[in-house]
Amino acid sequence: MNVFGKNFRVSVFGESHGAGIGVVLDGVPAGLELSADDFAADLARRKSGAKGTTPRKEDDIPEILSGVMAGHTTGAPVVVLFRNGNTRPSDYSLFKEMPRPGHADFVAGVKWHDFNDPRGGGHFSGRVTLCMVAAGVVAKKMLHSGYALERLTASGLPLPQDDSRQLFSVEASVVEVGGVPLSEVEIPGERNPSVLWSKQLDAAIADGDSLGGVVECKVENMPVGLGEPFFDSVESLVSHIVFSIPGVRGIEFGDGFRAARMKGSEHNDPVVSPAGTTSGNGAGGINGGITNGNPVVFRVAFKPTSSIRMTQHTWNFTAGRISSLDIPGRHDVCFALRTPVIVESAAAIVLADLLLSLR
Amino acid sequence: MNVFGKNFRVSVFGESHGAGIGVVLDGVPAGLELSADDFAADLARRKSGAKGTTPRKEDDIPEILSGVMAGHTTGAPVVVLFRNGNTRPSDYSLFKEMPRPGHADFVAGVKWHDFNDPRGGGHFSGRVTLCMVAAGVVAKKMLHSGYALERLTASGLPLPQDDSRQLFSVEASVVEVGGVPLSEVEIPGERNPSVLWSKQLDAAIADGDSLGGVVECKVENMPVGLGEPFFDSVESLVSHIVFSIPGVRGIEFGDGFRAARMKGSEHNDPVVSPAGTTSGNGAGGINGGITNGNPVVFRVAFKPTSSIRMTQHTWNFTAGRISSLDIPGRHDVCFALRTPVIVESAAAIVLADLLLSLR
Amino acid sequence: MNVFGKNFRVSVFGESHGAGIGVVLDGVPAGLELSADDFAADLARRKSGAKGTTPRKEDDIPEILSGVMAGHTTGAPVVVLFRNGNTRPSDYSLFKEMPRPGHADFVAGVKWHDFNDPRGGGHFSGRVTLCMVAAGVVAKKMLHSGYALERLTASGLPLPQDDSRQLFSVEASVVEVGGVPLSEVEIPGERNPSVLWSKQLDAAIADGDSLGGVVECKVENMPVGLGEPFFDSVESLVSHIVFSIPGVRGIEFGDGFRAARMKGSEHNDPVVSPAGTTSGNGAGGINGGITNGNPVVFRVAFKPTSSIRMTQHTWNFTAGRISSLDIPGRHDVCFALRTPVIVESAAAIVLADLLLSLR
Amino acid sequence: MNVFGKNFRVSVFGESHGAGIGVVLDGVPAGLELSADDFAADLARRKSGAKGTTPRKEDDIPEILSGVMAGHTTGAPVVVLFRNGNTRPSDYSLFKEMPRPGHADFVAGVKWHDFNDPRGGGHFSGRVTLCMVAAGVVAKKMLHSGYALERLTASGLPLPQDDSRQLFSVEASVVEVGGVPLSEVEIPGERNPSVLWSKQLDAAIADGDSLGGVVECKVENMPVGLGEPFFDSVESLVSHIVFSIPGVRGIEFGDGFRAARMKGSEHNDPVVSPAGTTSGNGAGGINGGITNGNPVVFRVAFKPTSSIRMTQHTWNFTAGRISSLDIPGRHDVCFALRTPVIVESAAAIVLADLLLSLR
Repeated sequence: MNVFGKNFRVSVFGESHGAGIGVVLDGVPAGLELSADDFAADLARRKSGAKGTTPRKEDDIPEILSGVMAGHTTGAPVVVLFRNGNTRPSDYSLFKEMPRPGHADFVAGVKWHDFNDPRGGGHFSGRVTLCMVAAGVVAKKMLHSGYALERLTASGLPLPQDDSRQLFSVEASVVEVGGVPLSEVEIPGERNPSVLWSKQLDAAIADGDSLGGVVECKVENMPVGLGEPFFDSVESLVSHIVFSIPGVRGIEFGDGFRAARMKGSEHNDPVVSPAGTTSGNGAGGINGGITNGNPVVFRVAFKPTSSIRMTQHTWNFTAGRISSLDIPGRHDVCFALRTPVIVESAAAIVLADLLLSLR
Repeated sequence: MNVFGKNFRVSVFGESHGAGIGVVLDGVPAGLELSADDFAADLARRKSGAKGTTPRKEDDIPEILSGVMAGHTTGAPVVVLFRNGNTRPSDYSLFKEMPRPGHADFVAGVKWHDFNDPRGGGHFSGRVTLCMVAAGVVAKKMLHSGYALERLTASGLPLPQDDSRQLFSVEASVVEVGGVPLSEVEIPGERNPSVLWSKQLDAAIADGDSLGGVVECKVENMPVGLGEPFFDSVESLVSHIVFSIPGVRGIEFGDGFRAARMKGSEHNDPVVSPAGTTSGNGAGGINGGITNGNPVVFRVAFKPTSSIRMTQHTWNFTAGRISSLDIPGRHDVCFALRTPVIVESAAAIVLADLLLSLR
Repeated sequence: MNVFGKNFRVSVFGESHGAGIGVVLDGVPAGLELSADDFAADLARRKSGAKGTTPRKEDDIPEILSGVMAGHTTGAPVVVLFRNGNTRPSDYSLFKEMPRPGHADFVAGVKWHDFNDPRGGGHFSGRVTLCMVAAGVVAKKMLHSGYALERLTASGLPLPQDDSRQLFSVEASVVEVGGVPLSEVEIPGERNPSVLWSKQLDAAIADGDSLGGVVECKVENMPVGLGEPFFDSVESLVSHIVFSIPGVRGIEFGDGFRAARMKGSEHNDPVVSPAGTTSGNGAGGINGGITNGNPVVFRVAFKPTSSIRMTQHTWNFTAGRISSLDIPGRHDVCFALRTPVIVESAAAIVLADLLLSLR
Repeated sequence: MNVFGKNFRVSVFGESHGAGIGVVLDGVPAGLELSADDFAADLARRKSGAKGTTPRKEDDIPEILSGVMAGHTTGAPVVVLFRNGNTRPSDYSLFKEMPRPGHADFVAGVKWHDFNDPRGGGHFSGRVTLCMVAAGVVAKKMLHSGYALERLTASGLPLPQDDSRQLFSVEASVVEVGGVPLSEVEIPGERNPSVLWSKQLDAAIADGDSLGGVVECKVENMPVGLGEPFFDSVESLVSHIVFSIPGVRGIEFGDGFRAARMKGSEHNDPVVSPAGTTSGNGAGGINGGITNGNPVVFRVAFKPTSSIRMTQHTWNFTAGRISSLDIPGRHDVCFALRTPVIVESAAAIVLADLLLSLR
């Protein structure tokens, strides 16, 4: 269903070309400062426009429908609505007949007996991730405010020792595009992925093809003790929400898949301080599903954009045979470039929910 | 918390060295044939004893406490209890003072203010995965019985076309140990991982070290249309439960992390039949979070066993410094060898829940 | 929290004097006919304007934000938004200082540390019941369409035998106002409560006082077998949602409180047909929490409207003593008159959820 | 389903004549003192044996399967199992053919296609309420320990002012039997209902008939601010769980059904202190679904026991006509006498869950 979380509950709705897309946030404590302006920075990070992303621009103006008064949350559900504009319904009429490779056209038609909204991917549109970004903004407010500190203290958990920094300092960034790791393209002082991987992006643009990428997320200044055995481990919850982001193919924590190739003596990293610091953080900040005070670190693999300019082939349900398909419209060459803020939001939502679930 | 699922709800309890470990299964339809004997085959697959696994043997005798009468499920919750035997509480007294690297000793102590049961890992013990195997047995019953067929038909979903085979035919196996893929160790007709990777296991045993591994799970003869957007995608639910298995570091579907290095023209596989068959199944049988009729394929990375015979180092809370630590007892050299049946169970639990959630 | 239901999930948001009030409906099957017009009849029944109800009029125009395309549900969440108009924020500034008797002013202030929206009761406003009516409209669509029939058939449950009538025919009406039962005021052919109890309403209006009432709801043409032991009995779910309606003080099923005064030989009604018909339906259509095929019957007690024209007394937090309080504005003399459609909706929501939960 | 609660989650299982009946408690904080002996007092209150209750005696010995070590909860799920003894399966073979009036025999057979366990009511047996009593014991531990105090303080809620008494002091008692209120049978110093209503009970025993009753529950020394709008009002949650108790026909809070007959000027009780004390507590300690600091008061109507010694009539599915039915075995004349501790437990479970849900 379209709800995630137990005590901080995020519920999304909307379709790419319907009236709008929105999110209901239940469980937000009263008294957090919040205004429509607070969403601007993170929404801008998700925006398109740079090289490698679609030139289709949307305004993405958040309207707070409820749960905020006089600049503070009221304790009632917070609802943020994004009206859809700039839609081109005519672009999408073809895909019930000829499902686009890599898209949900075929499965949605079968599942919903052809009543699904096919326009722009409908409810499957990447546009729905706007909701996760909006939820993430509110989650970060919780994690970074005095509220988090009070909540941890009340639970008797030790606080992170670096009090010069934000609690739950979360940051995600692109670390690989088209198979080329950041280490091969680094430019001192440059953080814009579209610049760093411009050569790869230019080549894909020239080919009418698309590229995948890997995003790494790190949460620093973490308390010990978040997460719940057996089924609500931190990894379980993070992976659950991360795989809701369209186009994710894999997730790994700490040493990840590399851990399967290591020996115990290499992967086990010793505890080296009474705060639980380990020497190598191969566990990605989590033991037994519970945060261990080290940075939570995970990486997410995104597939290349499914919609490409090159001619493709797919089953033609009218003709009863495979036909060639050209997908019109404007698409991201590498949508992974736009996802770091979404991945950050996913992490923040999980941590906010776990914070509220401390007992 | 300790509950997973919406309509097929699995709730686990127990600690390694307490009275027992068990599972409550809610939502099981009435009339399925079920007896204690049905658990034997899958429990045996999880058992230790082969090379690379611990010689500590447990009898793992399932007792059905409720929900079954005259060999059939009654519609009330099914509860399966495994009494603990062969426990050695004295082995574990040390680890509150000196948390074992890679274990939950430290985090559990902090989270539960030292009231947690530290014996054998307590509620974090791999022994709790017995519950998942038991739940998996019941889930497979649902998926493989006429019940699944009726349910799919009632939902108006097309059935898989290969009616010579079981619906939801699920199988997991070890495909890599200690970094060595199956392709390098294959022996015709041999399926026992302990034999195939005996060289690697022998070396680790000699060193007193441990190895990680990768398990691949494939579900064939899948219907189209299971899974729910936005948050309950098949990948979300599978990864959620898979990361509940102790020692998992990563999961990937279809082309997985490799997809991030592919071009769209390579990774997009065309639909080549009206049943939705694709040419390459790079999506692992899932589009937009919903099954597309192709086999569901995913791989899980397991870390090397944390408890090793070699001397390790860790913080000594009594001494206030790092000390050396020798972990007594008998441990798996590569616990990944015992996990395929657990991974299969995880997949079956998710699919059974999604089957019951069809509307 | 603000979510009800398992498979048909209703999530409400909004505050009386904020931007709007709305409802998210998750789990709606694809292909139901639905348009904004479908809400008109039930919304009109909840409207004020008749004798005994407030003259404050609102337009209550439903806007479908998502989940509907070309007149049919798409399978994605259905969201209905009601913009607030005709608000008078200035009327309500006093009540943080002097909490109105019978209102949530005091508790909301304490719970949310005075960040709650006090205007018009904020999130506690009776206006939020608009959401339940909207959800009820969609629930009735499910219950009255071929969808319900298919679902019951698929579950192997016998269908009600009266196929000349709607399945799940639900109807609620006022049966008592100000302690005067319907039997004492009946007028042949007259169904308007404001007319039937006009004498009682006139007297209360003259006094500046208010009246309570009792609503009875009956669901006929019921199938056998809805409801889930142990915790999700039909009575449990119905009472759960009914007590969400502001101002409810009690609920009873079948013989209700009178059953406590009966003997077993009187209250036990014999089964008199193979369809499960009982002679007296003292159980209100439910045994062991599960529908028995007889009409589901329950009654709901509503308190008199808390806001009255008479001068009242309450604690004055500024003055530190009890002060007199006059509540300005326009209020229902007997808000129970407006509730039958809300109670019907509550019943329909529960039954739709149970229908979707059949396995 | 068989799970109740969000943060304190109670899951019940078992059938009257199966291996046993039990309860899984998830969310219990670590460090509460708990042993099998702690259950004795409340279990004894539910026991039969006194006049008006069945002479069938069960030992009801709780076995703690997990979640407790060295006399304290560990933070992992607490499971309590009651093995069934003293079962007489042969007594119950008839009721699939001739469903007992007032019982779930008919509906369970239909719902579960005759695979349900009919012995002693199976999963519908009143015996399952043992689980609620056991859960209530643990809930009371939470509410009465320093844990509750810490939790309230951390949430910034004001504490009840009477610190000479237990927080959340919960007590339920029988206030009416066979239509005769306590006020008519009171004997100074006597609190045993079997003695107080001995005349009514004797008459029913002589007739082979049964009696209903009303139980009142009061929770004193309540904090302000528990409960969640919109759907998780205190009344919603309490009524939800109370209607899980077999045989409940109605519930009312504060003035209850009488409120529907009162005027606003009578029912509205003024706030008379800064702590929120009201003059009359007609709202039963709850406004807008949230506790207001006054005692929470509610009454529950229980039907007369369905199994009576008198000959009854019911449909005979074999004969295809109504037949006479004599129910063998030993039954409570008035099972309501045994329910106060169950109702108390229900209240305690809800309050513990709400305490854990404070944010």
